[in-house]
Amino acid sequence: MSDPQAFPVAIDIPVAWGEQDLFGHVNNVVYFRYFESVRMHFLERIGVLRSHAGHGIGVILASTACDFKKPVVWPQRLHVATGASRIGNTSFVLDYRITDEQEAVVATGSSVQVMYDYRRAEKVRVPEEVRAAIVALQGATFNTP
Amino acid sequence: MSDPQAFPVAIDIPVAWGEQDLFGHVNNVVYFRYFESVRMHFLERIGVLRSHAGHGIGVILASTACDFKKPVVWPQRLHVATGASRIGNTSFVLDYRITDEQEAVVATGSSVQVMYDYRRAEKVRVPEEVRAAIVALQGATFNTP
Amino acid sequence: MSDPQAFPVAIDIPVAWGEQDLFGHVNNVVYFRYFESVRMHFLERIGVLRSHAGHGIGVILASTACDFKKPVVWPQRLHVATGASRIGNTSFVLDYRITDEQEAVVATGSSVQVMYDYRRAEKVRVPEEVRAAIVALQGATFNTP
Amino acid sequence: MSDPQAFPVAIDIPVAWGEQDLFGHVNNVVYFRYFESVRMHFLERIGVLRSHAGHGIGVILASTACDFKKPVVWPQRLHVATGASRIGNTSFVLDYRITDEQEAVVATGSSVQVMYDYRRAEKVRVPEEVRAAIVALQGATFNTP
Repeated sequence: MSDPQAFPVAIDIPVAWGEQDLFGHVNNVVYFRYFESVRMHFLERIGVLRSHAGHGIGVILASTACDFKKPVVWPQRLHVATGASRIGNTSFVLDYRITDEQEAVVATGSSVQVMYDYRRAEKVRVPEEVRAAIVALQGATFNTP
Repeated sequence: MSDPQAFPVAIDIPVAWGEQDLFGHVNNVVYFRYFESVRMHFLERIGVLRSHAGHGIGVILASTACDFKKPVVWPQRLHVATGASRIGNTSFVLDYRITDEQEAVVATGSSVQVMYDYRRAEKVRVPEEVRAAIVALQGATFNTP
Repeated sequence: MSDPQAFPVAIDIPVAWGEQDLFGHVNNVVYFRYFESVRMHFLERIGVLRSHAGHGIGVILASTACDFKKPVVWPQRLHVATGASRIGNTSFVLDYRITDEQEAVVATGSSVQVMYDYRRAEKVRVPEEVRAAIVALQGATFNTP
Repeated sequence: MSDPQAFPVAIDIPVAWGEQDLFGHVNNVVYFRYFESVRMHFLERIGVLRSHAGHGIGVILASTACDFKKPVVWPQRLHVATGASRIGNTSFVLDYRITDEQEAVVATGSSVQVMYDYRRAEKVRVPEEVRAAIVALQGATFNTP
């Protein structure tokens, strides 16, 4: 992969046979599980899982989307990568890219996470330490608006 | 169904197209989701979900098993029924039966639930009110050893 | 629901307890399973599942997206509705809306399906009979560009 | 692991965050997906997936069971191993063992596979080449009754 800064967090996931559906390839729903799996590692890296567990400041998923580029068939090992593409006032955007063992892009996607105070049950501004952690992870070329 | 006492709690579940696998019928894993779905209603009926949420006395699944009798193909609506077959000292057994719209039995199974004090992190005796609730649900012919 | 023409195909789905995740509500991935479940009924109604099985002319999912409006907690019965919003040259768009028992909208979404000849492994124009079936289902107010 | 002969086929599976349920650990249903994932590799190794695809002689799952030994929490990498414990006339038994990164056994289980001629839709005797492949995989100490 040529752009470590854009997608700084990645995991490898072996496709499970049972993730294939009647049409003979990995079912569309499963890609969102893959996105979620790498998202949780990203959230861990920027301290949001700790902050959620510790004092109730976490994220809520507002939306997510996937473009399916190429069917995936078992057996296969996927490389699932993510990175932030934008930080807003109360939310940030993650982009995703899934590649197969042949380095073909099989899917891309994105998700919007809203910072949420679970104790007060309301949206909050993205904390400075979260912004800083994202910028540190993405590298100097990342522009935070 | 001819034995309401044996299987006093039941739900209807529409099969999802995506629960079918490459072999063209509902995937084996999904039957355990069906068992769990009706089990939760059983646990609610005998007060265990409330007791778990309220003061940490719930159940832990110790084991479960399924016999697959007949492949299931979408579209189909399944009738998933459960009932207790035995109450032990610190555990009880639930039996399951899944029938299709034609009333054919497509799967049977069972699970063992251990009563667990989540706050003290240890097994506990099945509380008297849980025993009484199970007996009330199963009816007079139920033998608690 | 006030717009049967916009969302002419709908199913009711009981939420499974196990579809909830660690955060205490239905996991984001599951909404795409719900979308798929109603999509399959839509595809059946417009003859695409038959055409896929019969002579290899089916659809491939190109993309899908979901906006999460309101967390869903078990027990709950969801009403999952879909309808076409656009027919293109080789693809068509489905919109989705999920409402709960209180008729609150809990999620909306969409997906793009590309008509695909599985035998020749290439995109094909949306057949006239599929266009006609969609228009018949959506009603007179539907504009096909 | 001390008994390569008993469990000659194994895979490593990273636990997905979303495989955890409301009770805070990996959901019971997921263990059967893990069993299936390693079973498919076993079936591939003994030639049954090829024989299924090639001339319709495959297996049907007759039953499966799991004993849950220890809750599993994300993040974790599991080692899922399987081996045959018995070959009968028309079926064979696989045993499963799942261990965590600390080499603690978190679950054990088994499944019964029936040899099935999908073209004639009937059970068949376990073919000699399948018996030979299982014995070769399990090693000299394996007793086929």
